[in-house]
Amino acid sequence: MNIGFIGLGAMGRPMARHLQAAGHALHVWARRPASVEDLPAVVWATPAEVGAACEVVFTMVTSSADVEAVALGEHGLIEGMAAGSLLIDCSTIAPEAARRIAGRLGERGIDMLDAPVSGGPQGAIDATLAIMVGGAAAALERARPLLEKLGQRIVHVGPNGAGQVAKACNQIIMVAAIEAAAEALHLSSAAGVDGGKVRQALAGGSAASRVLEVMGKRMVERDFAAGIEARLHHKDLGLVLAAARQSGVPMPLTASVAQQLNALMALGLGKNDTAALWCVLEAK
Amino acid sequence: MNIGFIGLGAMGRPMARHLQAAGHALHVWARRPASVEDLPAVVWATPAEVGAACEVVFTMVTSSADVEAVALGEHGLIEGMAAGSLLIDCSTIAPEAARRIAGRLGERGIDMLDAPVSGGPQGAIDATLAIMVGGAAAALERARPLLEKLGQRIVHVGPNGAGQVAKACNQIIMVAAIEAAAEALHLSSAAGVDGGKVRQALAGGSAASRVLEVMGKRMVERDFAAGIEARLHHKDLGLVLAAARQSGVPMPLTASVAQQLNALMALGLGKNDTAALWCVLEAK
Repeated sequence: MNIGFIGLGAMGRPMARHLQAAGHALHVWARRPASVEDLPAVVWATPAEVGAACEVVFTMVTSSADVEAVALGEHGLIEGMAAGSLLIDCSTIAPEAARRIAGRLGERGIDMLDAPVSGGPQGAIDATLAIMVGGAAAALERARPLLEKLGQRIVHVGPNGAGQVAKACNQIIMVAAIEAAAEALHLSSAAGVDGGKVRQALAGGSAASRVLEVMGKRMVERDFAAGIEARLHHKDLGLVLAAARQSGVPMPLTASVAQQLNALMALGLGKNDTAALWCVLEAK
Repeated sequence: MNIGFIGLGAMGRPMARHLQAAGHALHVWARRPASVEDLPAVVWATPAEVGAACEVVFTMVTSSADVEAVALGEHGLIEGMAAGSLLIDCSTIAPEAARRIAGRLGERGIDMLDAPVSGGPQGAIDATLAIMVGGAAAALERARPLLEKLGQRIVHVGPNGAGQVAKACNQIIMVAAIEAAAEALHLSSAAGVDGGKVRQALAGGSAASRVLEVMGKRMVERDFAAGIEARLHHKDLGLVLAAARQSGVPMPLTASVAQQLNALMALGLGKNDTAALWCVLEAK
């Protein structure tokens, strides 16, 4: 199959390579052409050209505006993709943006799935991502053989936008868990108690989590190299709080975590791992 | 061995029964004698009498003041326990209270361990508690065969008080995870997305946790029967914030969770499961 991939960063690149390894021909476009020079792929001059060459196109970019530009902008996918082709957007964007883009593509007979992922760069490399899908069931069934090359757990959450809602929930819970681990381990450190021992003691109980395993270890070892860059979580929590405001849902904990991420950004730590929330608590 | 047990509530009762099932003679005292009438145990009139009859005494009561009264108060354990005997306090109390009580008992040659547990009533019944131990290594080695009847994971965190510090960390992380799950699932519900599907989608990713499995399920099913009574978490977060203030550690997320627990208490939901933080967000 001819497959397009736009957004070849820390997540997108290993994902594209898995699709290629499965025997598909890879077509790409990149804002910075130098970034795809080393890829054994057909490089096109615009997203529209990628769309014209492919039955399925993946996008894995940063923001709602980025997906909108690539899909609907000048020389966007919509100008090239044929009726009956499929866009799978793995970016983390606003649910309403996902619905709007799907609606516009739908008018041309182009299917779209929002399929944001969880698991980070390591999950992308290991093809163990959790994939949260919003869109038509039939479109998911077409996409499933491809998604199975990328992840182990593919859940159809609901119609377009529902995948992004699930991803928003994922980010709320994950970043809150990172901040909670930072506050807890910081308190134990102030009490002169070894954070490594505390992590070990908690691993068997009700507080056990993936975050405590992975990010808790980074805090204790003061290893703040990303990982997942904190600036991306900062962006995601901005989306979440906008959605909360729009829906009239109170989110006091999420709001306090977002403030800590603001402080992290102000300290210039946005390219560090989100475990660097630890450093915000230390700031003198 | 003659073993004392004081505090025969939802946690203490199954713990005491496991010790008895292992062949030890059980000695008890209770503020309300009626509460132990059905136990096949020697019932004494004061903690001091329990202490005089036993080589090892367990306490599993609510607050720092409760442990202090039972251990050091009038007719307290300290008046009965012999030099060389051992107090194992499984209550969740302030680290400094644990250190102070251990210090007073130590003057009489009585050993003490702080050994708070995580896993809830079900963990107590299944003898799968995580046990976080503070105190002398030699005292822990004496206690270990007994603790192994109660839990699967026994971690020596450090000297007296360190077990309570680990438990404080456990509570911060656990209650924050409950509130984060409530906010996330509430947002998804407002967006018309099925909370059960969201939980399923998140289970494989970076947001996976015991809390999301257990408490997330309760929220989605609107089952708020305890479980762990929220009033106990309210008490625990009070201890945590007092320790944070004393140590000069900023805990903005923990503070916002504590406010939500205040609201939960004000709504009269303290005897519900902490999953009832969901209800605080719903309150009109």
